[in-house]
Amino acid sequence: ADSSSSELAKVYPLPPSSSKKSVLKEDLKTPDSHVERDPRLIRLTGVHPFNVEPPLSDLYDQGFLTNEDLHYVRNHGPVPRCADEDMLDWEFTVEGMVDNPITMSVRDLLADHEQVTYPITLVCAGNRRKEQNMVRKSKGFSWGAAGLSTALWTGVPIGDLLARARPRRGARHVCFEGADKLPNGYYGTSLKLNWCMDPNKGVLVAHKMNGEKLHPDHGKPIRIVVPGQIGGRSVKWLKKIIVTAEPSDNWYHIYDNRVLPTMVTPEASANLPDVWKDEKYAIYDLNSNSAICYPAHGEKIPTTGENTSYNVRGYAYGGGGKRITRMEVTLDKGKSWRLANIYYPEDDYRAAPDGDTLYGGRVDMWWRETCFCWCFWSLDIPLDDLCSADDIMVRAMDEGMMVQPRDMYWSVLGMMNNPWFRVVIQKENHSLRFEHPTQPALMPGGWMERVKKNGGDLSNGFWGERMTGEDETVVVESEP
Amino acid sequence: ADSSSSELAKVYPLPPSSSKKSVLKEDLKTPDSHVERDPRLIRLTGVHPFNVEPPLSDLYDQGFLTNEDLHYVRNHGPVPRCADEDMLDWEFTVEGMVDNPITMSVRDLLADHEQVTYPITLVCAGNRRKEQNMVRKSKGFSWGAAGLSTALWTGVPIGDLLARARPRRGARHVCFEGADKLPNGYYGTSLKLNWCMDPNKGVLVAHKMNGEKLHPDHGKPIRIVVPGQIGGRSVKWLKKIIVTAEPSDNWYHIYDNRVLPTMVTPEASANLPDVWKDEKYAIYDLNSNSAICYPAHGEKIPTTGENTSYNVRGYAYGGGGKRITRMEVTLDKGKSWRLANIYYPEDDYRAAPDGDTLYGGRVDMWWRETCFCWCFWSLDIPLDDLCSADDIMVRAMDEGMMVQPRDMYWSVLGMMNNPWFRVVIQKENHSLRFEHPTQPALMPGGWMERVKKNGGDLSNGFWGERMTGEDETVVVESEP
Repeated sequence: ADSSSSELAKVYPLPPSSSKKSVLKEDLKTPDSHVERDPRLIRLTGVHPFNVEPPLSDLYDQGFLTNEDLHYVRNHGPVPRCADEDMLDWEFTVEGMVDNPITMSVRDLLADHEQVTYPITLVCAGNRRKEQNMVRKSKGFSWGAAGLSTALWTGVPIGDLLARARPRRGARHVCFEGADKLPNGYYGTSLKLNWCMDPNKGVLVAHKMNGEKLHPDHGKPIRIVVPGQIGGRSVKWLKKIIVTAEPSDNWYHIYDNRVLPTMVTPEASANLPDVWKDEKYAIYDLNSNSAICYPAHGEKIPTTGENTSYNVRGYAYGGGGKRITRMEVTLDKGKSWRLANIYYPEDDYRAAPDGDTLYGGRVDMWWRETCFCWCFWSLDIPLDDLCSADDIMVRAMDEGMMVQPRDMYWSVLGMMNNPWFRVVIQKENHSLRFEHPTQPALMPGGWMERVKKNGGDLSNGFWGERMTGEDETVVVESEP
Repeated sequence: ADSSSSELAKVYPLPPSSSKKSVLKEDLKTPDSHVERDPRLIRLTGVHPFNVEPPLSDLYDQGFLTNEDLHYVRNHGPVPRCADEDMLDWEFTVEGMVDNPITMSVRDLLADHEQVTYPITLVCAGNRRKEQNMVRKSKGFSWGAAGLSTALWTGVPIGDLLARARPRRGARHVCFEGADKLPNGYYGTSLKLNWCMDPNKGVLVAHKMNGEKLHPDHGKPIRIVVPGQIGGRSVKWLKKIIVTAEPSDNWYHIYDNRVLPTMVTPEASANLPDVWKDEKYAIYDLNSNSAICYPAHGEKIPTTGENTSYNVRGYAYGGGGKRITRMEVTLDKGKSWRLANIYYPEDDYRAAPDGDTLYGGRVDMWWRETCFCWCFWSLDIPLDDLCSADDIMVRAMDEGMMVQPRDMYWSVLGMMNNPWFRVVIQKENHSLRFEHPTQPALMPGGWMERVKKNGGDLSNGFWGERMTGEDETVVVESEP
C-alpha cells in the first residue's frame, strides 16, 4: 500500500498538513534569514532569537497534533544551517564512558536501526511564565499558556544507540550537545542514563516530525526528543551524545531549566553558584498543569441567546509519563468543584495493531502505560452559574494523586508555573466577557495586569483582587 | 566472615533489634491469639482486626529503620497461621495469562532465585486520615501521621518469577491474592505488569524483614512488597500471583484504596458502582507528603532557658520512586518560606560495594535512581521567631516539581491526605506549647478538634481558626 492509502486506514489522528511558508521580512536581517516561518507565531524575545508560541485558540483549534507552522519554538541563538543535500551526511557521536565509541551519520541512523513513531507533547519549562512575571519579575521571558505542542516524532530509541556503545560501570548520565553555538558555548544538557535505557520513557533520536524532515527551528536534521520532560532537555541539531558519571557541566544545563527555592531572589541568585549547581533544583519531568482555552481571552458570550450552557474546555498534561486522571472546575474559588470530562487522543495510538508502522517507524505504543501527550478536558456549565460566578478556575490531578496547587511557586527563573488556571468573568450588558490571567510576551491584557494596575497584591494567594482594609489579618475578596 | 562481623562493616544503617514479645491480653479472645505484639502500638479499630500505628515520636526516635515492634500494621481480618516448621512448604502460584504456570514453595523461592535486600518504606494510603475525618467523616478509620515504616526487605524481584512464567501478549496486570479470608473473599489487588517487570520499581516477593522471618502481622511466610506505592498493594500471606488482561476484580481492589472525586459524598458513593470501578481513581503511587515530628504534640519548650533556637524536624516521602528535593517551612501561613535540610539515609545503601550482600540478598541499589524510602528534614528556628508565630507549617516538593498543596483534597475514603502539615504554637507563661492537627484513633487532642469544638469551619482552607464576621466574602484570621 502506498503511504496515503495506509494513512487513511489509521485508527489514530494524523497531523494537519503544514502550509507553504516563506522567509518573513523581520527575519531577513537576522542570522535566521534562511528559515521559513508562519507569521501567526507570537515572538516572545523581540525579533531574534526566535522564541514563539502560537495564539492559544489557534493551538487548541488545530487539535491533538500541531503542525510545524504553529509548533512553539525555543531557540537560544541562530538556527544552525543544514541543507537538504547535506542531511544524510550530518555526523554525530556516542562517546564518553563507553567501551565502543561511535561516530555515525544520519544515513547510518536510518539504515542500521529500527525506527519508531510516537506522538509526543513537548512543553517549555517556561509555559505560563508570564503569570510569574506579573507577580514578580523573573529572569525569563513571558510565555503565555501556549508554550507546548504535540507532534508525531519518528526516530531511534536512544537506548538502542547507547546499548551499542556499551556504557561502562559508573556511568550515570547522558549529555547531549547541539550545533547551536551560543555566548556560553554550544547548547548542552543531560539526562540520567537509566532513563535513556528505559523503553517506557521513550527517549528518541528523531529525524522526522509529522512525517516530514525536521524544520530548521525544530532541529534539522536530528534532535533528541524526551517525552514527559521539559523541552529544554530535547537538544536540537544534535552533534554529541556523551556518557558521563556526572550531570552535564554545560552552562545551559546549570544556569537554565531550574526551579531554585522560592526565597532566592534574582539579586541573591547572582552569587549562589553552589545553589545553581545543585542537581536537586534541575527540572527533568514536567509537573502537572492545565489551562482553559475556551472561553478565550476577550471572548464574549450573550446571556440572552438561545444557549443555556457553555462548554468550558482546555488542555492538561502530566509529567514523567504520568496520566492526568481528573480535571476539576470551581466557580467559587475552591469551595466546591465540578468534575470535567477528559479525552486522551493518545490512547488511539495504543489501539494500533501490532506491527503497524507510520512514516517508516513502528507505532510502538500498545504495551506502554506511560503517557507522552497532553489531553483535553471539557465541561458544560449552565450560563446561570457563570452569571453568578466571579471566575472559573481549573486544576488537574495526576495518577500519583498530586493536584495542581492553589498557590504559585514563584522562583527566580519563573519556570514550572502551575497554580490553578483562572479566567475572570466580567458582567456586561446581556453578555459575559472573559479575561485570562495574561497575554504572552509584552501583549497587554489579562486580569493580572488589571489587578496590578489597581494596586492589588498578586502575591497574596487570593488573586489580589480589590483588597479593602487589607492588613496582616484581614482579607476581603472582591464583590461580583 | 560470619554475619555479625560483616554487618559491623556496613556503610549503611542496620535495623534496631526487635524485643522479645508475648501475646497481649487483649488479643487472647480474638482470632489473633497466636500473634505476639508490642503493647506500644496504638489500635485504630478497636481490639480486632489489628490496625495500628506507633506513637509518632517513638517512630521518629527509632530512626531510619523501624523494627517489627513498632512497624505499622494494616490487617483486614484475622492473621493467617503459618507455623515455623511449615514455612518452607507454603505454596504459591504464578498463573493466568502465562505460557508456563508455576506452583512453587517458599523452599523453591529460596533455592532457585537470586535474592536481594532493599530498604523500603511502606505507607498506608490512610496515613493522616484523621485530619480528613475531622473535616468530614470519611469511610475509614483514623490514622494519625505515623502510618508508615521502613524496613530492610529480602526476597526475589517479582520480574524474575514473571519472566519464568512467560506472560502472553495482551497481559497487562498482575493480581495478587493473600491467605486472609474476609467477608468479601480473600484479600486481593493488582499492579500493572509493566511495573512488575521494571527493575527500577523494585517489586519483591519478600520472606525476610530486617533479616528475620516475617512477623505474622507482616505476612509470614511471604508477601509482596511494592516500593513507592501504597501499602494496600503489598499483599501479605501471598498465595497467588495471577497475570491478567484487566485489573483485579477483587472486592478490596475496587472498594478500597481509591480517591474518588471530592464532590462524591459518602451517601452518594453507595450507588455509584461505575465510579468505584473506574481505574482512574485507584491509588498506586504514593503522593508526596511530610509531617513535623518535633516539636511533638503537647511538647513544651521554655522561652527563657539557655536555648535560643529549636530544631524543628520530621519526615517526608515521595511516591513512585520520586525523590523529595526540598522541604520548606513557613511561620506566616505561606507568605514566606524557609528552606530546611534534607537527609536521605537511603543513599548510604547506594554506596555499598558491588556484590555486597545482607541477609542473603544482594544490596542492589547503586545503579538505581529511584527512591524507595522516606527521608528526614530539619531546620533550626530562632525561638524569637517561634514566639511571634501562630503556627509552623511544612510542605515537600518532589523531583517532579510538584508541591504539597495548601488545600486538603477530601474524598470519601479519606486517603492520600497531604496538605501542608500544621503545628499550632500556644503561648503560655515563659513557654511554648505545641499542638499537632490530631491524635490517632479516638484519642482526643489537636488543634482541629479544638477549632471544631469552638465552631470553626475546618473546610474553609484557612485552618478554620476563629472566624469572625464570616460570610461569603470576608475572612478574618485569628490574632496571636
